[in-house]
Amino acid sequence: MTRFMDVHHNMMGITDEQFREAHEADLAIQGDEGVSFVQAWADPDEGLIYCLSEAPSAEAVQRIHQRSGHPADEIHPVPLAL
Amino acid sequence: MTRFMDVHHNMMGITDEQFREAHEADLAIQGDEGVSFVQAWADPDEGLIYCLSEAPSAEAVQRIHQRSGHPADEIHPVPLAL
Repeated sequence: MTRFMDVHHNMMGITDEQFREAHEADLAIQGDEGVSFVQAWADPDEGLIYCLSEAPSAEAVQRIHQRSGHPADEIHPVPLAL
Repeated sequence: MTRFMDVHHNMMGITDEQFREAHEADLAIQGDEGVSFVQAWADPDEGLIYCLSEAPSAEAVQRIHQRSGHPADEIHPVPLAL
């Protein structure tokens, strides 16, 4: 398993409720790809969302986000963590 | 206090030890600006570092990172968190 940080752009104005619903949609199917979303943060003004996950691959993370209707714009492995 | 995600670019090849030392340099002086660095992640291959903090302002976060010798390239408030 690898740790990943993925980033979504163009999510300007996302509300706390929308953010929560999008995250729960991911959580509901993450097991299909062996992904575990761990934490997520959003900046509604600039439309940025960061999702931290543990997954077998970046492609697995993306498949979950795509099936939930919000593909990531960037997915980076972050093997180092403090 | 506001939660911030800041991003450093061009840190290609950073080692676990260098990452730890940079983070500890921040922690040693963060109190001067009322900043608390909470978590940090690095992608040495693409040279990306993400730092999660709580701080009075983005400028306070940047002053700590500048004094430690590694100014951030982006600093985003992330008021929403899951």
